[in-house]
Amino acid sequence: MTCPKFDNLELTLDEDGIAVLYLNRPDKLNAFTSEMVREFLAALDYTDAEDSVRALVVTGRGRAFCAGADLSAGAGSFDYAGDDVFRDEGGLLTLRIFRSLKPIIGAVNGAAVGVGATMQLAMDVRLASNLARFGFVFARRGIVPEAASSWFLSKAVGVSTALQWCYSGRLVAADEALARGLLHSTHDPEKLLGAAKEMARSFVEHSAPVSLAVTRQMIWRMSTAEHPMAAHELDSRAVQARGRSADAREGVSAFLDKRPAEFPDRVSSDLPACFDWQGEPQFR
Amino acid sequence: MTCPKFDNLELTLDEDGIAVLYLNRPDKLNAFTSEMVREFLAALDYTDAEDSVRALVVTGRGRAFCAGADLSAGAGSFDYAGDDVFRDEGGLLTLRIFRSLKPIIGAVNGAAVGVGATMQLAMDVRLASNLARFGFVFARRGIVPEAASSWFLSKAVGVSTALQWCYSGRLVAADEALARGLLHSTHDPEKLLGAAKEMARSFVEHSAPVSLAVTRQMIWRMSTAEHPMAAHELDSRAVQARGRSADAREGVSAFLDKRPAEFPDRVSSDLPACFDWQGEPQFR
Amino acid sequence: MTCPKFDNLELTLDEDGIAVLYLNRPDKLNAFTSEMVREFLAALDYTDAEDSVRALVVTGRGRAFCAGADLSAGAGSFDYAGDDVFRDEGGLLTLRIFRSLKPIIGAVNGAAVGVGATMQLAMDVRLASNLARFGFVFARRGIVPEAASSWFLSKAVGVSTALQWCYSGRLVAADEALARGLLHSTHDPEKLLGAAKEMARSFVEHSAPVSLAVTRQMIWRMSTAEHPMAAHELDSRAVQARGRSADAREGVSAFLDKRPAEFPDRVSSDLPACFDWQGEPQFR
Repeated sequence: MTCPKFDNLELTLDEDGIAVLYLNRPDKLNAFTSEMVREFLAALDYTDAEDSVRALVVTGRGRAFCAGADLSAGAGSFDYAGDDVFRDEGGLLTLRIFRSLKPIIGAVNGAAVGVGATMQLAMDVRLASNLARFGFVFARRGIVPEAASSWFLSKAVGVSTALQWCYSGRLVAADEALARGLLHSTHDPEKLLGAAKEMARSFVEHSAPVSLAVTRQMIWRMSTAEHPMAAHELDSRAVQARGRSADAREGVSAFLDKRPAEFPDRVSSDLPACFDWQGEPQFR
Repeated sequence: MTCPKFDNLELTLDEDGIAVLYLNRPDKLNAFTSEMVREFLAALDYTDAEDSVRALVVTGRGRAFCAGADLSAGAGSFDYAGDDVFRDEGGLLTLRIFRSLKPIIGAVNGAAVGVGATMQLAMDVRLASNLARFGFVFARRGIVPEAASSWFLSKAVGVSTALQWCYSGRLVAADEALARGLLHSTHDPEKLLGAAKEMARSFVEHSAPVSLAVTRQMIWRMSTAEHPMAAHELDSRAVQARGRSADAREGVSAFLDKRPAEFPDRVSSDLPACFDWQGEPQFR
Repeated sequence: MTCPKFDNLELTLDEDGIAVLYLNRPDKLNAFTSEMVREFLAALDYTDAEDSVRALVVTGRGRAFCAGADLSAGAGSFDYAGDDVFRDEGGLLTLRIFRSLKPIIGAVNGAAVGVGATMQLAMDVRLASNLARFGFVFARRGIVPEAASSWFLSKAVGVSTALQWCYSGRLVAADEALARGLLHSTHDPEKLLGAAKEMARSFVEHSAPVSLAVTRQMIWRMSTAEHPMAAHELDSRAVQARGRSADAREGVSAFLDKRPAEFPDRVSSDLPACFDWQGEPQFR
């Protein structure tokens, strides 16, 4: 498989449809730059559009996952005064991950600090090395949590733990992150990527690609609807559209025949029209 | 006690006011049909209207809880093309459970697959047999989660676990469901129903019926309000209405006298008028 | 430090900026009165306005934390019939705690019943004595949960546990409260206050005061936004405002110099103007 090439990232794809996106500035501990954001957004456009990609694992090259914002500009690193309508780049990334049509698994291989920690929160699951640490360090730098983490972090660990971690800004060890629900599991460093790929494979091997894309958007978006009627309105339409699809005929037939299903429908062409699956409110 | 009779369900009521609703197509593993939905809705209308019913336990006859949608129509089982304005029947059921005025406990005696798993999510608590398994299998059939489960499932287990279970569609064992928060507890099969009834009794034996009905609606509905002011507006009115009730006078007097309370008010006649407790947004 | 004096509360402040607010009617088990509410609101106005206060611990004098509403008026204790526009006093308190600009830690030294349990839910973290018990007893008194707890309680323990505790009204032991997520940790009674102060110190010792105030409001408020775009809109503005602040320059410089930061900005004068941090919807 040939994937797009990047300067700050590396993207691979195996025969099972599992893509791996590496943050690839190991000599800078994968510190986050504007260029890296642009490449990450482009990589997600690729994985969403390319039907041979079934799921995505995100990890870091070298000993860190991502050490946070690049501070090479020194004391003024967070001074974005020049921008009239400023949009936080971490948020551009997490909102784009939120809209992904493919499952995304974080494989946190080492230190994840600042935006290195918050960017993961829009991923579906996080696995980590035993050596990983998480630093929501914003208050120690005189700034505040970003990347829409004030929405995402409490989804993973609850409001109380979210506040505790952001107040102190201390580094949270993998064990504590596991106990508080941020992580699905922890692993020996050399087994982490394999475990993440194995989980990705378990997501896609028996499941219809269109079902995964729609399920991802339904669950993320409806988790915070004020009333379950919103979910009922959406799933009534989605079930009706997918229930008459070639995928559903194949899925039920295969089940009744006790054989593996071969789903014909494709994410690029067969998403149900009842909802704007990649839409989002306008930034105001 | 005489309860209504059903073809696909069985409803019983004991002297403590604990009703048990059995899914009762054991030879079909209690597979879900339109007729079963209609009867389930009627059963809930009965339990809500009948003051002698204090709480409801839902379980299955035979070795399964509910094996999911009846697939006897074969490959076209999910093709609802004939309906102009389609409403998913699983959602009709969970939204009705959501509006229940009596506590509802699921006693999951065996396999719970598809709508057999999602219908439970609107119940207040789930206890399960050690042998129970849960299958959010929609993506394996080429369809998507229904029964408003995109709203309900993350309430019980969080977004990440909800996505994992729906992506893979694998059967989740009772132990894992317990560890992830779907279940309150697991039990030997022959002790499950007794444990569920015991919990039901603990809910009702010292508590005012009207308090339970109002509490149920307040907590489910306010859990997703955008701001706690909505809860303050609602509970200010509900506390004012119930604080001057005969129940409150009796509740405080009994407490001060150190004797059991005998609450006079009834769900059928004494719900506070400050809120439409069984209302819901119109389906659009 | 000289703090305001109260009749029903005692407020102290140490050299690290850790304030302790004691509920101080030990002979009445710190039962909740209208006067205590007024004083509590005044204390929070003080801790928010006074820059030398960095964080607040709330605990009770004597063997109880708070035994709930004062029932000395007997059977009519909850009859507020005289008020035209009634606002529940527990809710006035929790909504004010919600708007606090300083971290708040509950140190639950003993029984916490009724409003004594629900008032804690708007605090950021709860530590408890091994001997503490929690009673959401409203249904046993013929009334309903108050203090906006129908919003707050499920944030801490989930909908299912919230319903279970409010249905039965039984006293929940510290161990169970810990297991269900209400508590961060439990402690020997004589070590509780020290542990709470130590946690408070960990929140403030390396963190900018303005960052803490803004972080607190962002995480509590955004946790229930319908879409993460709301968080992105807010944090884009807050990061832009704080990123150009003297605090950010000092925070980054100190980090790069590997020395402790000395943050110059103050909560009383330097909150970013992009949001009404202490605003709330009007009561309707």
